[in-house]
Amino acid sequence: MPALTRRTLVAGTALAAAGAASTMAAVPAADKQAPAIYRYKIGSYELTALYDGIWYRPITDKFIRNAPFAEVEHALDVAFMPHDRLATPFTALVVNTGSKLVLIDTGTGGQISPSAGELRDNLIAAGIDPHGVDAVVISHFHPDHINGIKDKDNNLIFPNAEIMVPGPEWAFWMDDGNLNAAPAGMKETFLNQRRIFADMAKTVTHYEPGKEVAPGIVTVPAPGHTPGHTVFAIHSGNQSLMVLSDTAQHPAVFARHPDWEAAFDVDGKETIATRKRLFDRASADRMLVTGYHFPFPACGHLVKTASGYEHVPLEWQVTL
Amino acid sequence: MPALTRRTLVAGTALAAAGAASTMAAVPAADKQAPAIYRYKIGSYELTALYDGIWYRPITDKFIRNAPFAEVEHALDVAFMPHDRLATPFTALVVNTGSKLVLIDTGTGGQISPSAGELRDNLIAAGIDPHGVDAVVISHFHPDHINGIKDKDNNLIFPNAEIMVPGPEWAFWMDDGNLNAAPAGMKETFLNQRRIFADMAKTVTHYEPGKEVAPGIVTVPAPGHTPGHTVFAIHSGNQSLMVLSDTAQHPAVFARHPDWEAAFDVDGKETIATRKRLFDRASADRMLVTGYHFPFPACGHLVKTASGYEHVPLEWQVTL
Repeated sequence: MPALTRRTLVAGTALAAAGAASTMAAVPAADKQAPAIYRYKIGSYELTALYDGIWYRPITDKFIRNAPFAEVEHALDVAFMPHDRLATPFTALVVNTGSKLVLIDTGTGGQISPSAGELRDNLIAAGIDPHGVDAVVISHFHPDHINGIKDKDNNLIFPNAEIMVPGPEWAFWMDDGNLNAAPAGMKETFLNQRRIFADMAKTVTHYEPGKEVAPGIVTVPAPGHTPGHTVFAIHSGNQSLMVLSDTAQHPAVFARHPDWEAAFDVDGKETIATRKRLFDRASADRMLVTGYHFPFPACGHLVKTASGYEHVPLEWQVTL
Repeated sequence: MPALTRRTLVAGTALAAAGAASTMAAVPAADKQAPAIYRYKIGSYELTALYDGIWYRPITDKFIRNAPFAEVEHALDVAFMPHDRLATPFTALVVNTGSKLVLIDTGTGGQISPSAGELRDNLIAAGIDPHGVDAVVISHFHPDHINGIKDKDNNLIFPNAEIMVPGPEWAFWMDDGNLNAAPAGMKETFLNQRRIFADMAKTVTHYEPGKEVAPGIVTVPAPGHTPGHTVFAIHSGNQSLMVLSDTAQHPAVFARHPDWEAAFDVDGKETIATRKRLFDRASADRMLVTGYHFPFPACGHLVKTASGYEHVPLEWQVTL
């Protein structure tokens, strides 16, 4: 068989250029990505995974607080990721319970990266009018979860939705003492929250961890990443899904290396304890899970390995 | 934190039922899957991965000819797959070279499984009129690659396309001596090919392995799975993609266990040799690859491990 080498690659390219010059394009390129929407069911509940896009978080050798950067670089290599940026995809979840349309987290609102901010367009492509969303449930107050409550002009994207936030999260971030005591880099986070919530403080609902926020959607406290960070157990019929929020960001880094403390975790040690507790449960029970920063469509299972956990994506189905 | 146990799952379900009974649905469920389309670029070429769906091939303990079924079951468990059916997703590829619109393989044409046959709808959802396809290039003659040339009523789905098939594949399967000598189970495959190609024999183009079928699309012989099984190297600018066709079917089974001979391979030993040669090259050069039976959108990289290869899917991008 002919060798497929870099030399034949170059030869192929030269032929390609010659061919392209001699004819006209029959069909123009689309030149944009297709919508990124995935539907699945839990009992009678219809779930829609909506991709907001991806941000490449700049990182340095200080990014993981408790591992040599050479080990981090190896993990990034294995996943075909660059060394200076952490691939940070965003996938939010719509739950149609039959009685309520609930959105869990809201994406970046186009305010973080030019390669993110697609959630609203994907929602509309999925046939869902943002005016029809009954409740927006927030897992925690980092900007990629709350900025999509509003567009760039400060208008509510889901004007008819009750905005539901974790009580402990509100208590921590809205405390001006905590703002004043925070290091400079973290102050931005506090100020962004005030930008989003300042004119909504009277209408935002605070939910207490452990309670339902909608039929079959139970909140579960998962502190560490932030003090009020919350995950969700969704149940319908005899099926369930655990919504892991930011218990681990990209699984190629943080599921495979659950002991790694990231610079963005408010309490690194508590983050790790929460991650292991939830991942041990999910892997032991072979539960269906979704993670906000797992690769789109972000749903699948977790397997415990000798050194951590492996995320096994669901196989894409064409029937629900 | 409250324990997330099977007991709280059941409690959550009871609450869910009570809640659902008290209110009306605000927004009806979509009740169908979203289109499955993914675009990416190689140099100036725009590629569109089109999902046709998934078939669950019934399997028995004879399915892998040269491994104990307990080992096969373990591989299936790790991938959250059932033991009696092999998850067989289908993803075809459209290449827009700027001068030609080329479709590589055609899906099942809705003739294999109720959970497959979506390729044409996904093509249209991608904004591509089937009449605009200039060339249909076939990797090999198994029904899930050729049946989509025609619809259920025997009409051509891509009426303006040149149908291009591997010369050695045509020579093997269209030989009536080979048909007559074939075991009963394999005769169906021969007869299906005659159903598809009988009235098109004069217009079908036979390509020779190693030649270009379109600018920048070079055919590479990859025999074993079938005698004329072909893969493709696509080049544009300084980028390239290897289209692996059926060099390995589901990577959770056959990339991780490259030595396994499947009952569906015409020549098991040659299949394994071809698989290792191509996968060694792809992993050593960290080439971008796509596989017809890799999970949608089927593009990514291969990493060599101690015991086989691991497929690392591309991260979904919102910009091309």
